[in-house]
Amino acid sequence: MINVGIIGAGRIGQVHAKSILTGVPEARILAIADPYMKPAVAEWAKSVGIEGVYEDYHKILDDARIDAVLICASTNLHAQISLEAIAAGKHVFCEKPIDQSIEKIEQVKAALAASPKKLIYQVGFNRRYDHNYRALRKAVEDGKIGEVQYVRVSSRDPEPPPAEYAAVSGGIFMDMMIHDLDMVRYLSGEEVVEVYAQGACLIDPAIGEAGDVDTCTITMKLANGALATVDGSRKAVYGYDQRGEVFGSKGCATTQNDTASNVVLSNVDGVTGEKPLWFFLERYMGSYQAEVREFIECILKDEQPKTGIEDGLVSIKLALACNKSLKENRPVRVDEI
Amino acid sequence: MINVGIIGAGRIGQVHAKSILTGVPEARILAIADPYMKPAVAEWAKSVGIEGVYEDYHKILDDARIDAVLICASTNLHAQISLEAIAAGKHVFCEKPIDQSIEKIEQVKAALAASPKKLIYQVGFNRRYDHNYRALRKAVEDGKIGEVQYVRVSSRDPEPPPAEYAAVSGGIFMDMMIHDLDMVRYLSGEEVVEVYAQGACLIDPAIGEAGDVDTCTITMKLANGALATVDGSRKAVYGYDQRGEVFGSKGCATTQNDTASNVVLSNVDGVTGEKPLWFFLERYMGSYQAEVREFIECILKDEQPKTGIEDGLVSIKLALACNKSLKENRPVRVDEI
Amino acid sequence: MINVGIIGAGRIGQVHAKSILTGVPEARILAIADPYMKPAVAEWAKSVGIEGVYEDYHKILDDARIDAVLICASTNLHAQISLEAIAAGKHVFCEKPIDQSIEKIEQVKAALAASPKKLIYQVGFNRRYDHNYRALRKAVEDGKIGEVQYVRVSSRDPEPPPAEYAAVSGGIFMDMMIHDLDMVRYLSGEEVVEVYAQGACLIDPAIGEAGDVDTCTITMKLANGALATVDGSRKAVYGYDQRGEVFGSKGCATTQNDTASNVVLSNVDGVTGEKPLWFFLERYMGSYQAEVREFIECILKDEQPKTGIEDGLVSIKLALACNKSLKENRPVRVDEI
Amino acid sequence: MINVGIIGAGRIGQVHAKSILTGVPEARILAIADPYMKPAVAEWAKSVGIEGVYEDYHKILDDARIDAVLICASTNLHAQISLEAIAAGKHVFCEKPIDQSIEKIEQVKAALAASPKKLIYQVGFNRRYDHNYRALRKAVEDGKIGEVQYVRVSSRDPEPPPAEYAAVSGGIFMDMMIHDLDMVRYLSGEEVVEVYAQGACLIDPAIGEAGDVDTCTITMKLANGALATVDGSRKAVYGYDQRGEVFGSKGCATTQNDTASNVVLSNVDGVTGEKPLWFFLERYMGSYQAEVREFIECILKDEQPKTGIEDGLVSIKLALACNKSLKENRPVRVDEI
Repeated sequence: MINVGIIGAGRIGQVHAKSILTGVPEARILAIADPYMKPAVAEWAKSVGIEGVYEDYHKILDDARIDAVLICASTNLHAQISLEAIAAGKHVFCEKPIDQSIEKIEQVKAALAASPKKLIYQVGFNRRYDHNYRALRKAVEDGKIGEVQYVRVSSRDPEPPPAEYAAVSGGIFMDMMIHDLDMVRYLSGEEVVEVYAQGACLIDPAIGEAGDVDTCTITMKLANGALATVDGSRKAVYGYDQRGEVFGSKGCATTQNDTASNVVLSNVDGVTGEKPLWFFLERYMGSYQAEVREFIECILKDEQPKTGIEDGLVSIKLALACNKSLKENRPVRVDEI
Repeated sequence: MINVGIIGAGRIGQVHAKSILTGVPEARILAIADPYMKPAVAEWAKSVGIEGVYEDYHKILDDARIDAVLICASTNLHAQISLEAIAAGKHVFCEKPIDQSIEKIEQVKAALAASPKKLIYQVGFNRRYDHNYRALRKAVEDGKIGEVQYVRVSSRDPEPPPAEYAAVSGGIFMDMMIHDLDMVRYLSGEEVVEVYAQGACLIDPAIGEAGDVDTCTITMKLANGALATVDGSRKAVYGYDQRGEVFGSKGCATTQNDTASNVVLSNVDGVTGEKPLWFFLERYMGSYQAEVREFIECILKDEQPKTGIEDGLVSIKLALACNKSLKENRPVRVDEI
Repeated sequence: MINVGIIGAGRIGQVHAKSILTGVPEARILAIADPYMKPAVAEWAKSVGIEGVYEDYHKILDDARIDAVLICASTNLHAQISLEAIAAGKHVFCEKPIDQSIEKIEQVKAALAASPKKLIYQVGFNRRYDHNYRALRKAVEDGKIGEVQYVRVSSRDPEPPPAEYAAVSGGIFMDMMIHDLDMVRYLSGEEVVEVYAQGACLIDPAIGEAGDVDTCTITMKLANGALATVDGSRKAVYGYDQRGEVFGSKGCATTQNDTASNVVLSNVDGVTGEKPLWFFLERYMGSYQAEVREFIECILKDEQPKTGIEDGLVSIKLALACNKSLKENRPVRVDEI
Repeated sequence: MINVGIIGAGRIGQVHAKSILTGVPEARILAIADPYMKPAVAEWAKSVGIEGVYEDYHKILDDARIDAVLICASTNLHAQISLEAIAAGKHVFCEKPIDQSIEKIEQVKAALAASPKKLIYQVGFNRRYDHNYRALRKAVEDGKIGEVQYVRVSSRDPEPPPAEYAAVSGGIFMDMMIHDLDMVRYLSGEEVVEVYAQGACLIDPAIGEAGDVDTCTITMKLANGALATVDGSRKAVYGYDQRGEVFGSKGCATTQNDTASNVVLSNVDGVTGEKPLWFFLERYMGSYQAEVREFIECILKDEQPKTGIEDGLVSIKLALACNKSLKENRPVRVDEI
């Protein structure tokens, strides 16, 4: 039995808590901490048997019974709490991104390497645990595609964030496309060598005024010579559009969107199926559960997870390269970052 | 070069004429006859180089240069013209049904058997030449399904005929479902042993008053022990619905409807593709062309076609058995007919 | 908080227990009983906090704290335990079928009616809670189909049961197709008036020797005049094939099978997607969770469930009518039963 | 009746001849010319009633009865013959590309503008007449997509050309992707402002040695601010992969590949449909017929075609911009060309 503490009791912290409560019998949540804990959340935590409900997460780090923490606090604290948790000898599941600064991630990486106790450190790139993307990756691993020659990812949100959020989010590449940048690496099994990013503000002028774009493409060269493109949009009126494709010497594998049911209605207007599941909580709920399950299993088996600190580090480099490419309107080699 | 005469210049006669003109270079249409030939049709026939445009089809039968005739006259004349054409030594392509009376079809069969010249006789079950149904049949022939255990055909027209037509059409089984009864035999490669027909009048009360039904099911037992169901409707508001399925020990093969394009639109209303092609002329145009091409090729190769007089005979027996089953509300063995 | 006891700790009893533990926070399992309780199951029950682990289910019925029982014992005990539970004033969720005898079900019905305490009684037709079938039913309820004119259900298991099981199961209609008979009623919202059943033994001769069939069709007339067909097979080599269609005056709605992922691979062999989910535990897991959730919610709201004793009674009548139809090879009116 | 001459009797010249013979009754082919005319082709031309079969195309240009010519000669002669045909007062259908040099196309454009007789000049971008792409364009024109924000085209051949061909073809952008560059303009209704091209040689090293690439992406900015990506490959083992997508403020429309039938086989290996139609002659046969029909209709109606000299000119500029972008590894504005 692994004893767990959850740092950050917002939406994603609650998602992880429920995943553990309902799907990971090998783990027990001993405590949850949030400086702005809402009363209803505190009450709920008590009702499901979480004994420690704190404002200060240090109480979790100081609790010797706790083996592992899930860091679901605000992004700017991820690196700092990671360092403290490593120092306290806790295994860490950290929401993405670890930080927007490479230096801080390198510090966490160094702390992990220096830890006298071997620690599991997993980053929350949940899509790697999605049933469709996992099956796509498996097709590549099993050699069904042959040599990978081209990867494509389409990523469209159903609605844009408020412009104020866009302003502090680090921009579309750091905030949203980072998942897709990671997905290109995950699906292909290859490192990205060079990126070229295009951006436009076509949806909400306020996003443009905040210095960000809401529509983008990213073109990439991979280490094995393969090419990749990613297209992103902050607003697809039909819902969360999440599709990928890997093409190679032996074939091509493609994923489609998931829907709530597969009922198709034929009438005078056409032949109509359901829209994609609305947003990430609906679409990726299974992957949130699976990633937390893997975290606990990795601790039990003393194995590193499929999504480690290196993945957290490289994805940030890619997002920064995209930022630079967009600003300078030229292809940027990742080793420039 | 095969010289052809077309008897009947209505819609289907014109369809076959155009198929020959544009897709069967080995055949030449020497004449077309219709007692009620419309001036525009006569003019068109002349313009495409058909030299003989007659009211009386006997002029075609009497023309020694003509090798083959396509009988597209009204249904009640099919058997009689068939007999005359056989007597004149012409190969015959006869629109379905040959007749609603088994005796008359037997006469044609006997005449064919007695003809001193070996004659090709093909019946217009065009769907056997449709790209989808042919591919489905090929899957069965190639053993992809294994032993056939169940066959299903769905057959829905986009709009009902006038009730007056229903009254003289021989009823839904003879007029419409005969294609589907033939399709069960074609797809399975098995004879039907017993049928059970249900009918209801749910679309147009006038059809019921005319003594017919507009909605039906047919359940069948096949000679190899397999089962089959067919469902029919005179009105699917979304267009001509034509689907089939064959299930067996090694798998299941299914066809879907054809559409004018495969564009799919995702918007706030759902994910919508096109409706099926509207009706038989749109949906089966390719099969009309293919069946006439086979007719000419069979003459050239001196081979019997894939759809011969026996198919014309058996399909009528099945339709009559359905009529009897509906009337007596009991399963009817085909050998009762 | 509703206190629950589970009677029967086999596969389905465990499924329901897990559904409550992980998805129904308003219910608490106080006890589980099985005369043949396996040690591993008893141990698991203890580990998840179920305090009472009994051989004799009467201990559950005698426990005044327990509000509701789930009857997951062997079929021949369903009616008897139902009667005892009703007498003990417990709400009842009873796995299907309540019994193979109409008389016994009528006794349960009478006991419910006579109970001084208003009791919830739900029958385990889980498919009514499946996301696809529920969406199909919703399309009908919302008037998207217009007047229902035809219903079709295809139901194929991935592998046949042992012939010994077939012998005692009550036959394919009682054991397997009863779900599909219920589905025709559920989807259409109409009662079945007459059935005609065909059967064949095409898969396993031993099933035939045991007096049962392994391939069947059921043709039906519904109270509103609509028609229906169901086709069943004990063995589809590609997995559990579960599809439905409702056709009416305004359109047609269809469900397809579910798959583990929607990845499609295009290669030299074709364009290939995944097979359907293997069998009922994979395909209908969501519906098992949803039906138990509804049971608890109905108790809390004091409402009758969407699947009550009348549904349990009628489905048995339909299965018996099918048995009679197959035996006598004639359509059988349900009011003959 | 329009009298037509065909210049060039290779594969595409024969395709156009057959389209006219079988599908354009308003046109008559008076002559066909090819300096390397194969005897079998000459014989076929005679057999279908083409009276003039020449080596020298000037005989066609000198024939005053001939209203229009189709230029299907080798690419390096397209511009020269265009100029001669315009001088002779003939309407021109010219296969793409008009030339690889902008200057030469400008000369043709100037000659057209200077012609005393108003002449129809159509360029062979046949895909604009394809049923799927036309429907996709129609969705955009009808406002179903709203403001266009992103366009994607995937274009993969089933097998690469010989490396010798690649060497003289003008490269993948000029030879193959030119259709896709045109398609982005056609689908969006917008001009391309800037391109960024990536290329790799992953399929046939000999193509790389010949100075070309066999795998590529093109990223674009359009005049209205929208973005676009195109991906190309010389070899998809599953056949000709031709898909497009237009995304905008009101939705997203997508086309899929066409197949010979829509039969789907479910068996132990999965759920398998047919591969895409093999290559352009299979996939785009309908569009070849439609474009020639439009050419004749435009002459008859005295209207300019949907694909005129400007489209021929701009597509070459885009291909040259891609060449430059690939060479210099930077985005290239189209007005640099």
